[in-house]
Amino acid sequence: MKEAITSYEINELIKKRWSPRSFDNREIDDNILMKLFEAARWAPSSMNEQPWGFIAVKKENESVFNKLAEALNEGNRTWAKHASVLAVVTARRTFSKQGWENKTASYDTGQAVAYLSLQAIQEGVYVHQLGGFTQEKVRDIFGISEDKDIIVVMAMGYLGDPGNLDDNLKQRELAARNRKHFDEFVQIIK
Amino acid sequence: MKEAITSYEINELIKKRWSPRSFDNREIDDNILMKLFEAARWAPSSMNEQPWGFIAVKKENESVFNKLAEALNEGNRTWAKHASVLAVVTARRTFSKQGWENKTASYDTGQAVAYLSLQAIQEGVYVHQLGGFTQEKVRDIFGISEDKDIIVVMAMGYLGDPGNLDDNLKQRELAARNRKHFDEFVQIIK
Repeated sequence: MKEAITSYEINELIKKRWSPRSFDNREIDDNILMKLFEAARWAPSSMNEQPWGFIAVKKENESVFNKLAEALNEGNRTWAKHASVLAVVTARRTFSKQGWENKTASYDTGQAVAYLSLQAIQEGVYVHQLGGFTQEKVRDIFGISEDKDIIVVMAMGYLGDPGNLDDNLKQRELAARNRKHFDEFVQIIK
Repeated sequence: MKEAITSYEINELIKKRWSPRSFDNREIDDNILMKLFEAARWAPSSMNEQPWGFIAVKKENESVFNKLAEALNEGNRTWAKHASVLAVVTARRTFSKQGWENKTASYDTGQAVAYLSLQAIQEGVYVHQLGGFTQEKVRDIFGISEDKDIIVVMAMGYLGDPGNLDDNLKQRELAARNRKHFDEFVQIIK
């Protein structure tokens, strides 16, 4: 239903990945969680700096999980609090050796999260990245240093029943995915 | 040889991907090139903005290909000029509808390139992203508007013989890949 409708045949994990708002309450095993971070680990980065950082909070730690959920904007909190894991994604702004500005820190971190998200699909786990949260709250909860940008919070878990969502969100959950046409973002010169 | 040595079992495409400097002179078919952009197309992005843009130049267009190669720093140009395709990756800094700043434009573009790079491995194609080039030269060659950041240039092609590289680069080409330990970038709170 949510599988991408493509003009060219592509990898199944890419076709199947999407960002749900309905999660069931099944826990993500530590071993699976580590597989996702292993996938992220092998992303490429400028000078092999690997600027990405992850703080993953499992729901079983109710107090920290709820604190992080509280830092999300209300529209996200409503559904994201049902995820099994909430994870903060950071990017270090400077190269650790030379101290120079790392202009692709955020870009490289995107690649790591992309690998993680596809590995997740292979494990039956879905990742919904969200930007709607209060930066300073998240920074305070975990004592994240100022040399790191906080990019997104990821809600992670197994698919749940869309019927548990509000009508508005339910419609979005069931809608087909859409993307720009090729001529809006690609030019091939030959 | 270059396959990632992992502690946790992960997807083969992620294990196999790396950034070579030796390319052979086999052309990338248009159909395969489109598959790579199809993969990029389905990456997630803030508000589904899809801020990424690609300008891919095939080697058969010698004049444009050479112009782009000339814009690369010499250390990159030496090997990148042997790639089949050189492609510019851009990220639009603002949301197209509202005109607001898009803070995750670069991050989201990283995700699109990650999908593209993994789809490439499925097709036997390797992508080496490089940041060493003169921004203004690349902007001028293609008339890229100022609302777009130029993030990287990708060298793309089939693996070549490392023996054709200079000694210094040959050693790097044959060296094992390495990454940080988990405790340097992941914290799991449970």
